[in-house]
Formats: sequence, structure tokens, C-alpha cells
Amino acid sequence: MKHNFGAGPCILPQTVFKQAADAVVDINGLSLLEISHRSTDFVQIMEEAQDLVKKALNVPSGYTVLFLQGGASLAFTIAALNMMRNSKKAGYINTGTWAKGAINEAKAVGFDVNVFASSEDQNFNYIPKNYTIPSDLDFVHYTSNNTIFGTQFRETIQTNAPLVCDMSSDIFSQKIDVSKYDIIYAGAQKNLGPAGATLFIVKNDVLGKSTSPFMPKYLNLKNHADKGSMLNTPPVFSIYTSMLNLRNLIANGGVDAAAERNQAKANLLYNEIDNNPLFKAAVQGEDRSLMNVTFLLNDDAHKESFDTLWNDAGIVGLKGHRSVGGYRASMYNALTIDSVKVLTDIMKELKNRN
Amino acid sequence: MKHNFGAGPCILPQTVFKQAADAVVDINGLSLLEISHRSTDFVQIMEEAQDLVKKALNVPSGYTVLFLQGGASLAFTIAALNMMRNSKKAGYINTGTWAKGAINEAKAVGFDVNVFASSEDQNFNYIPKNYTIPSDLDFVHYTSNNTIFGTQFRETIQTNAPLVCDMSSDIFSQKIDVSKYDIIYAGAQKNLGPAGATLFIVKNDVLGKSTSPFMPKYLNLKNHADKGSMLNTPPVFSIYTSMLNLRNLIANGGVDAAAERNQAKANLLYNEIDNNPLFKAAVQGEDRSLMNVTFLLNDDAHKESFDTLWNDAGIVGLKGHRSVGGYRASMYNALTIDSVKVLTDIMKELKNRN
Repeated sequence: MKHNFGAGPCILPQTVFKQAADAVVDINGLSLLEISHRSTDFVQIMEEAQDLVKKALNVPSGYTVLFLQGGASLAFTIAALNMMRNSKKAGYINTGTWAKGAINEAKAVGFDVNVFASSEDQNFNYIPKNYTIPSDLDFVHYTSNNTIFGTQFRETIQTNAPLVCDMSSDIFSQKIDVSKYDIIYAGAQKNLGPAGATLFIVKNDVLGKSTSPFMPKYLNLKNHADKGSMLNTPPVFSIYTSMLNLRNLIANGGVDAAAERNQAKANLLYNEIDNNPLFKAAVQGEDRSLMNVTFLLNDDAHKESFDTLWNDAGIVGLKGHRSVGGYRASMYNALTIDSVKVLTDIMKELKNRN
Repeated sequence: MKHNFGAGPCILPQTVFKQAADAVVDINGLSLLEISHRSTDFVQIMEEAQDLVKKALNVPSGYTVLFLQGGASLAFTIAALNMMRNSKKAGYINTGTWAKGAINEAKAVGFDVNVFASSEDQNFNYIPKNYTIPSDLDFVHYTSNNTIFGTQFRETIQTNAPLVCDMSSDIFSQKIDVSKYDIIYAGAQKNLGPAGATLFIVKNDVLGKSTSPFMPKYLNLKNHADKGSMLNTPPVFSIYTSMLNLRNLIANGGVDAAAERNQAKANLLYNEIDNNPLFKAAVQGEDRSLMNVTFLLNDDAHKESFDTLWNDAGIVGLKGHRSVGGYRASMYNALTIDSVKVLTDIMKELKNRN
């Protein structure tokens, strides 16, 4: 039994792995991998996946759900291109590596980017507050959860500008108010499905309004929306497995129940970190991510013992990102509280030994 | 038993489906879908996949193999952007739907496109010959096999200009001389693997030379090459399954043996079409595709009988594309000659009945 705390691609429910594997061998007499994306079988899969996204997140009418490719890295470009209007000014909040990536891609397509809030002064260990959002922006962009640094926005940004959010690492982990956003995007490989698909939830009013002189066909969301997310051959396996995972999510109480489970897991681990004298959290208070818990040993002399203990217990993926050091426990929807207990028990054991 | 003549996503070897399914459940104690793309397990998978592409196609040194996302539709843009030099003129051969798509995307990124050869005058039922390639081009582009119309280039285009080729639907079906190309690209979902990965084989000299003022990070092949095709999370499952399929290809004699099998299959079917008075081929002579055989009934009165016969025999995917009508038998590497015999036997039976 392994306990997968990896940051991504990451754990999904075991039953989803099993069902996906079955479909790779046989779905109505053919492998999922060899059916035409224009077949009735796959068109139904695509439609169900889109409907389940709408159901899980209570997406209001007037929004379109798309499954594209290229990950958040390409979505940075797609979102900026599609939101370009007359001002060619965009406001970004810089909360770390992925936010910076998004900022760079907005600049690359010709935006004058105003980074009106940043936590770079303290190595991104908090969520910026008390900022002023400039007026005259084509859109405002932020990254809801910062996988590397372990911070997370508790609330939607307040702004009158059209709002774009990269929710790659916390979408489907909690309730969101989709109506506040013009574009939400997310790489699938955290709480949605296997790597290879990128989810877009787009307000229909956005489509076809770009003023960008540069607009390749694949990067124009209107083209995808007009074709029901079948502009070209979609990533069939990733979409199918995402659909299975969304079925599983909804069968287990949807995002509300997932949010409760995620809060309980986070409480358990943060409490241990805060109360165990050997450890300290990299992020304090309300800015702490429920998805990615970053923490460090107070004394690196305990590193070898701790690493041996968690490795021996079947824990994988706990090593921290080089930008923060220490440890990172990613606790996506599919990670059980039992796996978190295995980790906190080891932390307690390390304390008792010292 | 089904006989999958679908145009794509399409048939792969049954053993590949089985092995891919096994990995979705368990690969070294975790699902393939939950391992980090930075893990040793996946880094080895990526490297083996790249090495097998090089081995299968005898790729010379000085070339880099990449697995991107977005399909040929995005590759149209990527290829053009990366080949942009001083003239901003490009030469394209128009052999149908996909070639037109590539032409449009070259225009969209600012190229003056010279379509120096086209078969549009006869609904793309032949491969253009006896054309003159203009000088002063940044590159020349063609589509080696035309999935929809059933034509295929028998030889590499002769030109002194840098050469780019979309080989989506015939790569790995025969030997090619990679050294003649600056960029080869191909959507995976024909002879390589599941939908969701796009193969690029790029001459290293090409990298970092673009003069395009517009160059998003994801669209710059140099960024992918510098990161060993791990600029961001790659399409793990599609790459793994492609690797399995390449292992299978090489174990079965590589592209030389595949080419012999493909020729035998094509001979069998084209002979039946040519000799059966009920049918006619959509394409004549040397321009016929070995991958996608397009053919029609001489008298549509036989349509119902024929459709019933092949449906009852377990044949799927034989319906022709609306651009040509009639039938299209796609015979990718994994389709056996026994499946082709099932089809030709039905064609014979239809003749005997009439």
C-alpha cells in the first residue's frame, strides 16, 4: 500500500484507475484508444464529461466547458489572447512560479502587464492583501492555489474587471462561484484526471471578442466552443478518465463533501506541524493551502531518520520543491485521511524518539 | 472480433492495449496515471520513447525527438512559427483538408504563403507533379499522406529549401530519410499511439532561429528541446502507450517489415476494387495511399446490401469522409491482412450476388 502525496500528476481514486484500465481493453467491443472521436460512443463521453463539470461546479448557463491540450503553460497564452480587448493592459497577482509563467505569456502576446500585488518579497509564503486594482484593464488574472509554495486564496478576487483564474491545483476541491469568472482554466492532472487535458470554463460573452492580431486557430476558444470541444482530435483517454473521476466525485457527495474531507485532512496535518516541536510550516494562518502543505524540519539533523520513516511506511512524493526545500504533502481529493494519519503518526514517532 | 478500418483514433496492437491497461492499474506500485513526470520511472519512459522513435526511423544525430500536445492543428502553427526566417515566405503543396489547414495557420502567423502546387482542381484525387518551387522561401511544407482523400506522396519532395512535413497519417508505416527534413510532425493517433501526443522530429539547427515577433513559450520548440520534452507536464499516458507500440513495431521487424505488410494489404484491397465491377477507386495509380483506401460503389443501389454485409462481419469505420463519399478503408500498421481479407471476401460476395 502506497500513500501518494505527490504534487502531480497525482493520486486519483483506485476505482477510477481500474475503470479506465478496463476501457483501454474494451468499451463496446473496441479499445477506448481505437474508437473514433466522432463515434457516438465518444461523443457521449465528451458530453457527459462536460455535463459533469457543470454539475460538480454548479456552472451557470452562459458558460461553455472545453477540454483542450497543452496544460496550463499553453493556457497562459490562450487565456491572455482571448481576453485581449482595447486597453491591452492586464492585471496579474504574482504568487509564485506559475503566476510568473502566466505573466510572462501575457507579455509575450503584447500585453502591458501590471503586477498590482505580489508576495515575492517573502518567497511567496503568503497571499497578497490590501492591494489596489488599477482601472482600465482588459482582465485580472490570479492563480487560486500555489502548488509549489503552498498558499491558497480563500476567496475570489474582488474586481470589476473581467476575471481569469488558473485553478489547476485546487479545482473540484471546494465550491466556487463560476459566475464571477470570465475564464477558469486548469490542467487536469490534479483533481480532475490524467495529464494531457486542460479544462476551460468560459463565459460565452468572451468568445470571439479578442482584438489580438495574432490568433492561431487552436488558440481561439471560440473555435473550440463552436465545435463542442472537437475542433480536432481531443485527448480521448484523459477526457474519459476525467469523466470517470467526476462521476466518482459526485457519487461521493460532490465538491461540498470533498471540501469537508480536504479541510479535515488539512487540519490533521497542520495541527501536527504546529504542535510538533521538530517541524515548522512554511506558510502561516489563513493563506495555507489545503492542497499542498509545505513544511520543514527545524533541525536538519533529523532529516535522515524522518526520510527513512516515511519511505518505509510507503509514503511517496513528499520531497519538497527546490524553491522551498523541506517537505510538501500534496493532499488532493483522492488522498484519504488514513494516508494523512500515516504521515502524522510518523511525525509523532519522530518526536517521541527525540 | 471487430475489424477496425477507422481513420483515427484507430487500431493499435491488442497486446499494446493490454499492456497499457496493466500500467494504468500498476507500474512499480503506483498507477501510471499518478506517477510524477519528474520521477525516475517516467523519465526512463520518456527517454525510451524518444530512443525508439530514433531507432525505428533511423534518425541521424543532430535531431531532437519531442512529444508535444495539441495535435497537427497546433503543430501547423508551431512548425510555421519555428521556421520563420528573413523572407517570411513559405511554399505549401495543397493536397486537401489538412494541407489547407496548415496553409491557413502559416498565413495566420504572418507568412506570405505560396501554394506552388495543388490538386484542388480534381477534388484532391491526385498528388501534384511537375511544379516549380519558388526560390527565397523560408521553408516548404507538404502533407505526406492525405487521410481524407486517400492520396500519398511516394517520395520526399525535392527542394533546396528547408523542408517541413506533416506525417500524421503515415509515419512509421515505411522507411523515411529524416535527414531531408528540418521538421517532421505527426499527431500520434494513427500509427504511433493514443490521441493526446504530437510527435516532433526537429533538426537541432532549426532551434532558436525564428524571427517571429510572436512566440509563446509553449510554441517554441527550443524550449521543449532544452527541457528534454518536459517543459511542462507531458501527456504521460499517450507517451507511455506510444513507447509500448514502438517496442512492438521494432520487435516485429521495424518499419521495413511494416512497409511490406502495408504494401501487401494495399495490393489485396486495390486489386479487389480494380477487378470488381461493382466498385471503383477514388484515386488512381501511384498516388494511391497505402494507409487510407478511398473507394465507391458504381451503383448506389448496392449500398444497403454492402453496408449490411460489412457491418455483420464486424467491420467498423468503413464509412467514407463526406468530402469524398463512398468508403474509406484505413489500414494502419496494426490492421492485419486477415481483416483486409474479410473485407475483400465481402466485396467478392456482393459481386457474386449481383
